[in-house]
Amino acid sequence: MSEMVSAETLRAFIARCTTAAGVPASDAATVAGLMAEADLIGADGHGVFRLPQYIRRIRAGGMNPKAKPRIIEERPAAALIDGDNGLGHLAVTLAAETAIAKARTQGVAWCGVRMGNHAGPASLYARMPMAAGMIGLYLAVGSANHLPPWGGLELLLSTNPIAVAVPTEHEPPIVLDMATTVAAYGKVKVKAQRGEAMPEGWMIDKLGQPLLDPKRASEGLLLPIGGYKGYGLALIFGLLAGTLNGAAMGRDVVDFNADDTSVTNTGQAILAIDIAAFGDPAAFRARVDALARELRGSQRLPGVDRIFLPGEQSHATRTRRAAEGIPIPPPLRATLDGLAGELGVTPLFG
Amino acid sequence: MSEMVSAETLRAFIARCTTAAGVPASDAATVAGLMAEADLIGADGHGVFRLPQYIRRIRAGGMNPKAKPRIIEERPAAALIDGDNGLGHLAVTLAAETAIAKARTQGVAWCGVRMGNHAGPASLYARMPMAAGMIGLYLAVGSANHLPPWGGLELLLSTNPIAVAVPTEHEPPIVLDMATTVAAYGKVKVKAQRGEAMPEGWMIDKLGQPLLDPKRASEGLLLPIGGYKGYGLALIFGLLAGTLNGAAMGRDVVDFNADDTSVTNTGQAILAIDIAAFGDPAAFRARVDALARELRGSQRLPGVDRIFLPGEQSHATRTRRAAEGIPIPPPLRATLDGLAGELGVTPLFG
Repeated sequence: MSEMVSAETLRAFIARCTTAAGVPASDAATVAGLMAEADLIGADGHGVFRLPQYIRRIRAGGMNPKAKPRIIEERPAAALIDGDNGLGHLAVTLAAETAIAKARTQGVAWCGVRMGNHAGPASLYARMPMAAGMIGLYLAVGSANHLPPWGGLELLLSTNPIAVAVPTEHEPPIVLDMATTVAAYGKVKVKAQRGEAMPEGWMIDKLGQPLLDPKRASEGLLLPIGGYKGYGLALIFGLLAGTLNGAAMGRDVVDFNADDTSVTNTGQAILAIDIAAFGDPAAFRARVDALARELRGSQRLPGVDRIFLPGEQSHATRTRRAAEGIPIPPPLRATLDGLAGELGVTPLFG
Repeated sequence: MSEMVSAETLRAFIARCTTAAGVPASDAATVAGLMAEADLIGADGHGVFRLPQYIRRIRAGGMNPKAKPRIIEERPAAALIDGDNGLGHLAVTLAAETAIAKARTQGVAWCGVRMGNHAGPASLYARMPMAAGMIGLYLAVGSANHLPPWGGLELLLSTNPIAVAVPTEHEPPIVLDMATTVAAYGKVKVKAQRGEAMPEGWMIDKLGQPLLDPKRASEGLLLPIGGYKGYGLALIFGLLAGTLNGAAMGRDVVDFNADDTSVTNTGQAILAIDIAAFGDPAAFRARVDALARELRGSQRLPGVDRIFLPGEQSHATRTRRAAEGIPIPPPLRATLDGLAGELGVTPLFG
């Protein structure tokens, strides 16, 4: 059975481990806050679950613990950030903060990242402009290729996600966070862990036949949403988050699950839209509220209990976990205990 | 059999008709150029095919032929344009021109439209920044609702499209133009015209069962790509292109196929990204070329002849039609001849 841990305790543990791995304390605090937030909102494959991998990469020399992300190109409404091969969270946070500050005066701003790394769930960063009263949009090149071009066999694209966060007045914020494949690769891993078959439509094998056994996932291809349309989205999001910034795309993408030492040169991009540039923000939020209620309250198909808005379920998870704690399953606890031992720090349940 | 017409002849005909309907000559030329371009690239449901409907709407008082679109909110990298209820092409063209001019100095710019109307295929507008050496991204609220929220029955969302255009050096430009549904409604209409059944997965009926007869389309619901993901995209694109601008979304969207008199208050949004703000544009275009070749040249699934990049097929159609002309099927010719008669102008094949 999972043990529960508070976000604060989890944050302190992540900060201890990353500090012990050589990351300066203030950067460790930034990363720990974002990783614990990932667990709070239910993005379980992107929070503390990733910590052992990040530490392994730092210790193997594949990631720079002392990285100093900085702006290397700049215009009034645009910037390119070099992540200095540090933890991805640091470069993307700088990108989001820069975009927010620029959008405040310019109306809109777009910041790209190169030489970054895996940064956790997309919605974290789309939410940053939202926390400043803006609309946030985030795109990323995923940290491993799982998708061929449409009609192809070679894994040349990642499940490049998009997240968009839109503020509301009284309703839960509208937050879309999705991979461009029918199933994210993390969901395939969860099926494998649970010993369950995948539904048809998630993956095909190299003959184009449905692949249902998640343990054979490494032989298969994820299917994009809407066939060639999802392929198009994965490609375009990768061009915007990767190629535009001089970050890795296509064959250059390093599989960071299989390789701890190669520099990934991960790319991300963030757009901040200041709602006040288009009219009264409170009136906008009221319109979003009204639309959310209109959709939720509309007629349902037979057998459907409830219509959800994007982000409503992660909002509910966050509320519950903030009160009850974050569940840590026994295998994850064992891994984290091992990590604490290696680093010589107090364990999570210390 | 279809008769062939040159883009120039088609453009002149469209300009004659719109001028005769009261649109000033320079605006008519702008609209005619964009509509003929839609036919050139193979967007047959969005070119001259729409002309009778536009004219009908102007004559019924639902659209303002003398509209003067203008900027009503402005920041250095953002603007909101009021389309004055004119032909949608005019407001979106102003939005694109404004975004391009602002992006040139600011790096990036976003312009929204309210009080617009149907503006033709999304890719036309994403291509405008591209023609200026930039990346263009365009979002629109569709001109009729065909999509329920995920799990719902009521048509509260349109197939809100996205188009993104990315310049290349030697390769055909990469241009994605897609609705957020598995099939655009225009494709359903084409199936009905041809008397063909729809494939499973395009539409369901109000009990959630597959709907295959395109003549029963008005009883059915289009399916979003990737299920709830496509619903999320349609909603988000609508919030960005509609709600942010104070344009219609949800129940407020007028079905412009069924109603010629109500003001549609259609919303669109365009983003221009100046590639030079992120590094050397020629180096970027070379990276895009290399990626396109990498994808096209990669291994294929059994039975697949060729891997396409988004926009490659419309690029080929444009090349062919520019040389051989645009096919006008007999029923469309009859409709256009009737329209010319009503307006007292020389017919297309006059």
